[in-house]
Amino acid sequence: MPERTDEVIGFVDLPTLELESGRVLENVRQVYSRYGTPKPDGSNIVVICHALTGSHRVAGEPLAGQPQPWWEAVVGRHKAIDTDSLCVYCFNMIGSPYGSTSPLSVDPATGQPWGMDFPLFSVRDIVNAEKAALDRLGFPRIGAIVGGSLGGMQALEWAILYPDAVDRIVVIGAPAHLYPQAIAFNEVQRQAIFADPNWKNGRYQGGPVPAKGLAMARMLAMITYKSENCFTQRWMREVKNGDLGDWSGQFQVESYLHHHGEELVRRFDAGCYVYLTRAMDRHDIGAGRGGAEAALKRLAGKFLLAVGISSDMLFPTWQVEELADLAEKAGVNASYDEIESDEGHDAFLLDFDQVDDALRAFWERSGLTVRTC
Amino acid sequence: MPERTDEVIGFVDLPTLELESGRVLENVRQVYSRYGTPKPDGSNIVVICHALTGSHRVAGEPLAGQPQPWWEAVVGRHKAIDTDSLCVYCFNMIGSPYGSTSPLSVDPATGQPWGMDFPLFSVRDIVNAEKAALDRLGFPRIGAIVGGSLGGMQALEWAILYPDAVDRIVVIGAPAHLYPQAIAFNEVQRQAIFADPNWKNGRYQGGPVPAKGLAMARMLAMITYKSENCFTQRWMREVKNGDLGDWSGQFQVESYLHHHGEELVRRFDAGCYVYLTRAMDRHDIGAGRGGAEAALKRLAGKFLLAVGISSDMLFPTWQVEELADLAEKAGVNASYDEIESDEGHDAFLLDFDQVDDALRAFWERSGLTVRTC
Repeated sequence: MPERTDEVIGFVDLPTLELESGRVLENVRQVYSRYGTPKPDGSNIVVICHALTGSHRVAGEPLAGQPQPWWEAVVGRHKAIDTDSLCVYCFNMIGSPYGSTSPLSVDPATGQPWGMDFPLFSVRDIVNAEKAALDRLGFPRIGAIVGGSLGGMQALEWAILYPDAVDRIVVIGAPAHLYPQAIAFNEVQRQAIFADPNWKNGRYQGGPVPAKGLAMARMLAMITYKSENCFTQRWMREVKNGDLGDWSGQFQVESYLHHHGEELVRRFDAGCYVYLTRAMDRHDIGAGRGGAEAALKRLAGKFLLAVGISSDMLFPTWQVEELADLAEKAGVNASYDEIESDEGHDAFLLDFDQVDDALRAFWERSGLTVRTC
Repeated sequence: MPERTDEVIGFVDLPTLELESGRVLENVRQVYSRYGTPKPDGSNIVVICHALTGSHRVAGEPLAGQPQPWWEAVVGRHKAIDTDSLCVYCFNMIGSPYGSTSPLSVDPATGQPWGMDFPLFSVRDIVNAEKAALDRLGFPRIGAIVGGSLGGMQALEWAILYPDAVDRIVVIGAPAHLYPQAIAFNEVQRQAIFADPNWKNGRYQGGPVPAKGLAMARMLAMITYKSENCFTQRWMREVKNGDLGDWSGQFQVESYLHHHGEELVRRFDAGCYVYLTRAMDRHDIGAGRGGAEAALKRLAGKFLLAVGISSDMLFPTWQVEELADLAEKAGVNASYDEIESDEGHDAFLLDFDQVDDALRAFWERSGLTVRTC
């Protein structure tokens, strides 16, 4: 058992955050976890951005009332993001239910939870909040920005919004913009939540939560996070329970989806899910910037690693390769790497050896000092 | 405008139908459409099996209270299934809401619609009902059996259950058995229906129907019937309505899904949808027969055409090719053809030129006389 890395959980309160829409949020909380010790100039700071239902806790001890760490194998002493020499910050993004400002927070105008009155926000808004928090912590520049999935979209936007703040960008399993099939999957998931009679336009606090709707959203999402091969290799047509000749029958793959649906209900919020999937839909680095290639020109000379996942059905490899190609054309020192896996989109949370290899190679190429064991 | 083909709509009532589960349905109605004139020996009969939300009406005039024809371009005078020389029968499968016995029918034991008390049935049960109906019509042998998607599964089962009854089988966009990802998509769709407060365990007759649940099921299904390229080429990230900075905003792809969801609610029944998707899940030609190859040995020497669709995400080409390969190993005179299309699974309902070519080539290869214009 490798030694665990000390984790500091903290928060920063921002007086205001102006959103892309023009609306202004007040008293915006940014909860974060920190691992390792930052150099005063921030040069050894790696900011990690988490995915849709992830949290700021990339590593650390299990803690009551706190979400489970999700990148323990990647962040820590002598790991690919080596906290002996590097310092990791991960912020809980706005809109997420793990402590930062979200639809669960209290609307100062009413004294009630925001619910669907919470303003819509974008990936750029998420990033602006994180950057402002990091500035307040005293680190206007960092060594690298890293993220997978919705976290990868943040990493991209972080660098494009603040090109002077970071020279190394790692994007895993994320495209330059969402393609319409991914938007379509997100919309069906939101509709499942909206259709739940407990949804009540997001005003379900104090009553039953829209558990069925959120579980159903997650069931669908799980199909898109996995792959056909993954399901086939694990279960094929195996029956879990009952008799398929009546409604008692259940295939293993159905049981698996139900399990993951119920599990998410225990740890996530339906309103947050709705807002965060919408932020994802709106992800488009080229929007308002003359296209993706023009946006990527802001990163000319910087180092970008784009990592696709061979079996990813949500953000197929060609979308991630396209990002790397556009970046290269834009003068970015870009490389494309691929996780070979049947796990689907989820591979960045599972195939740690390949994540490890890709990150170490990138640190070496981009000159981020990592002490090796 | 080509001359339309005379259509005869009729029905056959079967006194009983014993299901795979051992349960016996009484007074089973089989509604059908017929086109062209059958030869007394049935040798010019092509039975077409329809897909999940299709009907017996493959061609014909628009008729009040009857579903729209779905293969008008394929069936008719001088078309690929040429009703000048061939005779087409298409049965509305049991469980479908277009007139045949289904969960909407009255349970003789209670005098009420069956709802969820309707016995579960399988693709084999669907086929047994159709075959029994055709026997009653005086045609124990036919010239060919043809179907796409769930209809293709029926075509396969028809030939395997009754190898003496047919020598030519055409399966479009369907596998030898459902793989777990397809089961997973179906299960999420059923859950959407079950979660609708109007569902009431299938006892919604006389009250509001579970429209939201069925619409949501259809929205998800539409993603699986189309392809990423199809959505990208049509709409990319085009906004249909409103402002993405608030909840008024809607992408074109979202509008498209909603449209198709609402359209299905107007013409289909949620309970039927639940039963038919379950029959599809259970599709497995190898079950109880020592595997798919052993099952296909019953077709040794017969002609099989398996047609994949290049962009099919529901039943990818490799699944259809696998069927053709297994059939060939089993001694079937099998061939594989492919519809090159970005339309996804739906291509068999859209890319008629390619369906036409594939069918004409198969008739020639398998010796079914088709008069050409």
